[in-house]
Amino acid sequence: MTQKKTRLRVIPLGGLGEIGKNMTVLEYGNDMVVIDAGIMFPDDDHPGVDLILPDYSYIVHRRDKLRAIMITHGHEDHTGALPYLLKEVGAGVPVLGTKLTLGLVTGKLEEHRIKKPKLREIREGGHVNIGPFGFDFIPVNHSIPDGVALFIRTPVGNILHTGDFKFDQTPIDGRLTDYGALAAAGKKGVRLLMSDSTNAETAGITNSEATVGAALREIFATAEQRIIVASFASHIHRVQQVCDAAVAVGRKVVVTGRSMINNTKIARQLGYLTISEDNLVDAYEMGDLPPERVVVLSTGSQGEPLSALARMANHDHRTVTIEAGDTVVISATPIPGNEKAVSRVINRLSKAGATIVHKGTAPVHVSGHAAAEELKLMLNLIKPAAFVPIHGESRHLKAHADLAKLTGVPDENVFIMDIGDCLEITEGSVRIAERVESGVVYVDGLSVGDIGQVIIRDRQLLARDGLATIIIAIDQQDGRPIGEPELVMRGISLGGDDSAFMDEARQRVAKTLAKTAREGATDHAVIKNAVRESLSQFMWERTRSRPMIVPVVMEV
Amino acid sequence: MTQKKTRLRVIPLGGLGEIGKNMTVLEYGNDMVVIDAGIMFPDDDHPGVDLILPDYSYIVHRRDKLRAIMITHGHEDHTGALPYLLKEVGAGVPVLGTKLTLGLVTGKLEEHRIKKPKLREIREGGHVNIGPFGFDFIPVNHSIPDGVALFIRTPVGNILHTGDFKFDQTPIDGRLTDYGALAAAGKKGVRLLMSDSTNAETAGITNSEATVGAALREIFATAEQRIIVASFASHIHRVQQVCDAAVAVGRKVVVTGRSMINNTKIARQLGYLTISEDNLVDAYEMGDLPPERVVVLSTGSQGEPLSALARMANHDHRTVTIEAGDTVVISATPIPGNEKAVSRVINRLSKAGATIVHKGTAPVHVSGHAAAEELKLMLNLIKPAAFVPIHGESRHLKAHADLAKLTGVPDENVFIMDIGDCLEITEGSVRIAERVESGVVYVDGLSVGDIGQVIIRDRQLLARDGLATIIIAIDQQDGRPIGEPELVMRGISLGGDDSAFMDEARQRVAKTLAKTAREGATDHAVIKNAVRESLSQFMWERTRSRPMIVPVVMEV
Repeated sequence: MTQKKTRLRVIPLGGLGEIGKNMTVLEYGNDMVVIDAGIMFPDDDHPGVDLILPDYSYIVHRRDKLRAIMITHGHEDHTGALPYLLKEVGAGVPVLGTKLTLGLVTGKLEEHRIKKPKLREIREGGHVNIGPFGFDFIPVNHSIPDGVALFIRTPVGNILHTGDFKFDQTPIDGRLTDYGALAAAGKKGVRLLMSDSTNAETAGITNSEATVGAALREIFATAEQRIIVASFASHIHRVQQVCDAAVAVGRKVVVTGRSMINNTKIARQLGYLTISEDNLVDAYEMGDLPPERVVVLSTGSQGEPLSALARMANHDHRTVTIEAGDTVVISATPIPGNEKAVSRVINRLSKAGATIVHKGTAPVHVSGHAAAEELKLMLNLIKPAAFVPIHGESRHLKAHADLAKLTGVPDENVFIMDIGDCLEITEGSVRIAERVESGVVYVDGLSVGDIGQVIIRDRQLLARDGLATIIIAIDQQDGRPIGEPELVMRGISLGGDDSAFMDEARQRVAKTLAKTAREGATDHAVIKNAVRESLSQFMWERTRSRPMIVPVVMEV
Repeated sequence: MTQKKTRLRVIPLGGLGEIGKNMTVLEYGNDMVVIDAGIMFPDDDHPGVDLILPDYSYIVHRRDKLRAIMITHGHEDHTGALPYLLKEVGAGVPVLGTKLTLGLVTGKLEEHRIKKPKLREIREGGHVNIGPFGFDFIPVNHSIPDGVALFIRTPVGNILHTGDFKFDQTPIDGRLTDYGALAAAGKKGVRLLMSDSTNAETAGITNSEATVGAALREIFATAEQRIIVASFASHIHRVQQVCDAAVAVGRKVVVTGRSMINNTKIARQLGYLTISEDNLVDAYEMGDLPPERVVVLSTGSQGEPLSALARMANHDHRTVTIEAGDTVVISATPIPGNEKAVSRVINRLSKAGATIVHKGTAPVHVSGHAAAEELKLMLNLIKPAAFVPIHGESRHLKAHADLAKLTGVPDENVFIMDIGDCLEITEGSVRIAERVESGVVYVDGLSVGDIGQVIIRDRQLLARDGLATIIIAIDQQDGRPIGEPELVMRGISLGGDDSAFMDEARQRVAKTLAKTAREGATDHAVIKNAVRESLSQFMWERTRSRPMIVPVVMEV
């Protein structure tokens, strides 16, 4: 499996044609480095699935070559697969990231009981050599502190991987995306730019995080009762701004929701979040404060049914009850697919009489990703010979590719890749080579990777039309049916009288059995097929639906 | 069931706390009129359900009193339940609407084989007396032509029902919302205003439909290959603008998708859509034209998987194949819950190399509903004594109620109602009276109303964790289990080796059966419960999921 020493292989295993599970492999000769190890959260098309991982078999099969895993920032779609991957490749593989990124990763690895992971802190502006690769870490703005882009020196030339980024001219922590370092990289020459495509369809620029602070201060200044702000727990700058706005109007901050409590704790410990102990109040002591002296900082901005905000909306939160006149700020945007869930929570809060402020009614959220003008700026700073848009659905990759062409990257050097595609870079050429094994791995309960498309498809069918089990007892001596077939249905809507329907269905099956018996069929598969067909036909005639039919033959 | 002759009852049976299935009952003494009869399209929470109807039992049980059904405009969420309702109350009940509204309803009733419906055309500016009610029809702008608001004279005072509306200062057909008639209604005195809340959260005004035409012309002027525009088939003004923009640049229009073909045909016949025969080309003749001479007008703006646009995206449309360089305009906005489906289609089209233009990238869509400033204008024109926000989710109703208070409607006269609430108006008072029977009716295949919450819940459970059927043969003489229990599973993810898992599960059940036998249990219910519990426990231990367990006991 040793690769020729003259070519670099760049293999995205996730994050293309989707938002989520980012993961890219760099491979040169006997050395391999992985950039990011993210998960994706399943949507309604994946009933019962807890998490989706990239299929990283390609890495596992080459684990001897794996020198390090680089994490660009601490979001789940860049870190969430790390525990699963480390279980396969061994906890001895070094994981590199900035301080906050590793702080957030540590908790995750502990939950999964990964013993003694080799976490290696990197410093922005710093440099690390790993095998044939040299990595420079360039600070970038994003919706979590401490994000970095990677400038990667390889034997066949330089690569720039942006991670997730935006250009914020007034960042909360004063830490700008490093224009100088990017320009210097561009000057050294970059053969390949891989850049964040999330907002490639959005014209102009993404507003500064600081604009949210101004909006929050305005809302806090006039709210008369309790204020509840829901946001992403990892968005420490947003949390900081909520805290600052609260303190400015003399309100105490109550933190609720498990991940919000964990993340604010880690961020305060590591120095990324500043609020005095005095201004933080435990949820259980909130009752002592009048509503106009409180800001509740909560999880649940995505409408998650078990989150703190959803519990408040459903009146089953332990310490917060929404009352008419309360103000709820949704300081986030629904991730595609979560719109309905978020709306459901907003509706319940509205019904309880709360005033809801969200992105649609006030500037209480900005994106963490660069919009079109910023993407062009990145392209112009780097001036890459070749370009691969990453981190986006097909629509975003296409839009980003078009931007790259506008800035002068030659058409033939813009590659819209699929997961599992391999970009091969040699001294003289950049081209798409053969595909590698790749895909998705579903995590469902304790099972990782056992659930496949068949099960997902079964669940979708079950959800749509239900299931009918038909049980036939057969004499093991002569193969003749004994007694009446038994019919059990779940999730099927009958067009009227149930028992008459069931009788008729059983008669239809009995008739089919009599026929197969006359024809001398004793093979169970033949009998099952005949029964399945006749019952399916009956169901269609009577209900215009096609439930899953499961025939069971019991020999007795 | 005769109501006292001194009170008017206003009962919304749908459209509150939801977008869809609009229906309101007016009842006075022995007379009843229904306003609108809409459906709602199910979301992912209703697997396998085709349509959702309002539960109109209240009307059916009082069908002798029903004098007429008024339809404010031709959208499905105002007309779709009409065939189902007429089947219950009889086709002899007059249905009143404007010309286009009835034109669209006619086709729907024919599909359902409703014989000889009594369709009565109303003219805007006209007047009809029905029992104790007098109806004036006031033209309003909306995303379908020919919409009306209703000014209703009743023995206890006047009501204004806006239907769905906006104030468009430059409507495509020159037909303005009738400010004069609304102001005159306000002057006569309106005891109750019921007004469209869809965009109550949106500040400012909704842009004119004419702005879309300008955007389309700009896109059409520069597109180099084929142009495909997807929109709502009922949005005749949008269709008109697409046709006009196409003709202006010398392109022919190809209409595709069943509802688009039907609706443009009806609209042309009735004089609502103007395009010469010469500029329309049959889909099968499109091949004769170069791509730069064609605009395809298509259904599928909601990402419907079987629509014309989705077929094009999936490369299985009969006459249109998307090619790199084609331009696809999504001239619509996703209805909440459809975002993912729309995005899926956009992604596929992007992957095929098409340039996608949508609301997020160019002003190619405007809403058909009034935004906050327009809603306040309506409130100020009508100056109602009491106000009920209609047509909206809870968040929209709350926002609209707040707007009403801002314009001076007294707090105590603003009623946020639930479906089935009854607003009782007498000479001297307006109040919420007792609730009436109400709710939802699911249509699934041929079944109307047979599918209930239990089936929906079953389907959700099946989708999440799958189903295990465990079959136990029992000797009918002594009640002892015979042979091995049979286990059939669907949609369940096992944590490893299937056959070992199945063996273990069967052993666990066999043990339970031995135990119940020792305890002398012969009651099938007892045996089933014991088996269900032990298998459920086993599944949880091994997979951390809770599939539905269906035990079947067969006596042989």
